[in-house]
Amino acid sequence: MNSYKDKLRKITPYVPGEQSKDTDIVKINANENPYPPSPRAVEALKNFNTDALRFYPNANATLLKEALAKYYGVGVENVFVGNGSDDVLALAFQSFFCGREAIAYPDITYSFYPVWCELFHIPYKTYPLDEHFRVNVEDYREKNGGVVLPNPNAPTSLGEGEDFIRRLLDYNADSVVIIDEAYVDFGGYSSVALTKEYENLLVCGTFSKSRSLAGMRIGFAIGSAELIGVLEAVKNSYNSYTVDSLSIAMGIASVEDEAYFRTTVDKVIKTRTRVTNELRKRGFEVLDSQTNFIMATHDGYSMKELFEYLKAKKVFIRYFSLPRIEKYIRITIGTDDEMDRFLAEVKSFLEDKQ
Amino acid sequence: MNSYKDKLRKITPYVPGEQSKDTDIVKINANENPYPPSPRAVEALKNFNTDALRFYPNANATLLKEALAKYYGVGVENVFVGNGSDDVLALAFQSFFCGREAIAYPDITYSFYPVWCELFHIPYKTYPLDEHFRVNVEDYREKNGGVVLPNPNAPTSLGEGEDFIRRLLDYNADSVVIIDEAYVDFGGYSSVALTKEYENLLVCGTFSKSRSLAGMRIGFAIGSAELIGVLEAVKNSYNSYTVDSLSIAMGIASVEDEAYFRTTVDKVIKTRTRVTNELRKRGFEVLDSQTNFIMATHDGYSMKELFEYLKAKKVFIRYFSLPRIEKYIRITIGTDDEMDRFLAEVKSFLEDKQ
Repeated sequence: MNSYKDKLRKITPYVPGEQSKDTDIVKINANENPYPPSPRAVEALKNFNTDALRFYPNANATLLKEALAKYYGVGVENVFVGNGSDDVLALAFQSFFCGREAIAYPDITYSFYPVWCELFHIPYKTYPLDEHFRVNVEDYREKNGGVVLPNPNAPTSLGEGEDFIRRLLDYNADSVVIIDEAYVDFGGYSSVALTKEYENLLVCGTFSKSRSLAGMRIGFAIGSAELIGVLEAVKNSYNSYTVDSLSIAMGIASVEDEAYFRTTVDKVIKTRTRVTNELRKRGFEVLDSQTNFIMATHDGYSMKELFEYLKAKKVFIRYFSLPRIEKYIRITIGTDDEMDRFLAEVKSFLEDKQ
Repeated sequence: MNSYKDKLRKITPYVPGEQSKDTDIVKINANENPYPPSPRAVEALKNFNTDALRFYPNANATLLKEALAKYYGVGVENVFVGNGSDDVLALAFQSFFCGREAIAYPDITYSFYPVWCELFHIPYKTYPLDEHFRVNVEDYREKNGGVVLPNPNAPTSLGEGEDFIRRLLDYNADSVVIIDEAYVDFGGYSSVALTKEYENLLVCGTFSKSRSLAGMRIGFAIGSAELIGVLEAVKNSYNSYTVDSLSIAMGIASVEDEAYFRTTVDKVIKTRTRVTNELRKRGFEVLDSQTNFIMATHDGYSMKELFEYLKAKKVFIRYFSLPRIEKYIRITIGTDDEMDRFLAEVKSFLEDKQ
């Protein structure tokens, strides 16, 4: 028998990290920034003429693109903006992964990639990270329909440098290579300058981590005018107005406040170094993070147990019960106070278990 | 020869209405509301704890869904929200139009429908409106892969009532029927109550017209828990956080301010009646609008010329050089002052041409 149910899409969605309404918690599970957005962004919000919200936003978010173009030293025709970097990446998958061959990415990486492949019917293959969780660039010499890679990678926190990226690009001149730089501001190598040499390179970024604006949904991409043009055409075939007027205003002000940006990023890096050292002193193995989170494990203890223990103490970190990383925990870098509470609870856990 | 360019998507995007930065203009071309958003929505913005913008929004926008559920008298499991109604519609096309048969909609309607069909590879067929620009419901008895219809329709401004919608639903029990109610608050018949009877009915709405929040990008849909569940799964396969924190806060406050909503909607309707009468007095044919815009024509004059004339006078209306409607202009209802200026310029045009 026919039914409208035959025409419904069957799909398994991405599951985001847990959220809690409790206020007494330490929320270091979603890679959010512990510091508030730039005071200049807040001022832009307070000064916004709210009567103008009756109008549609500028469909091209031109002023925000101009601010980003100036900041990154590229042309405005090299900049794309969207409703968070997930929106930008989803549009990029639809724009650039249109060949018949499988696209390529690592086995351990951002868990949204296979979800987009399923949604858009894009074939894909994964290459395993090596035993130190590094990407083997030689894997990507194989013919493919495109490449996507976070750099630094998540949830490993490890980044690759210019040599690696150049080799990746040289091996893949016939595909679009997307480098997802969500975490790059915390110490990674940025490929933005390479977009001037490689027409097939798209670099994606976000205001959700280093700019403390996760609540406003602002993502961007930088690439050749050729790639940006296709991305714009696909975006304008999906939703003309993806970035709202307040996000545009706050985004511009944030980009223009370099001093605040530097100060808060440096604070996160300093705290990361301290927490890494403290954990290592207690026998943890901690990967060398270039992000605002760390991946850690301890030979003598179950990380799943530690995760549950901390949860009971209202310290929320992230645990992935996935092959190869089920022995690790992922901890977002919070304020020094938050990390002190985290470290104290870790100490209690280790002592309880002795 | 192989090239990355072979893997790029080829597509023709939707083209939104013109925008101008000039301040001395009368902008009655994009169906925006002439009145500012609810003062309560503005207050919600001013009172928002901006420190919290460092956090991701609630991925389900639960509080906004609850406000809409209460307003429309449905369950929270019957409500979906998105980044403007274009986002909601684009997700609905991907969620519900997955059969092999062509989906059905009128020849003259929202111009984004064929664009989404092309983007998502959905086959479609169109049925011509009759000579009075009405939809012939009997056309939709033919087997199809789904139905989408704005009610009231755009750019015709004409709406259909309960009998029509019930017949449409009875003819299409085996497909999902999407009723796009972007303009319904200005005097149309809303099918929201029918979602309790018809499991295959999805009703879409927006905060961009009657709620003066086009700048914030808030759209929603109401339907059976079955349909909303699929829509959520597809949305969570695309972008987990589509509605930002400030849009959620302002959206809730707007829905809760019924008095302001009623007052501004009634003002638009009153102005619409006046402008319709004035134009008819001057020999225009004006369709009986149930929206915040009117479709008008005049036997003795070229509407394209009138459009250009008004543009030169900084009065921006919309003209579609498309078959069957190239004899009409579409005028958004502005404030009384704006419409007086529009009417004065129309009078000048008619006199100049005599």
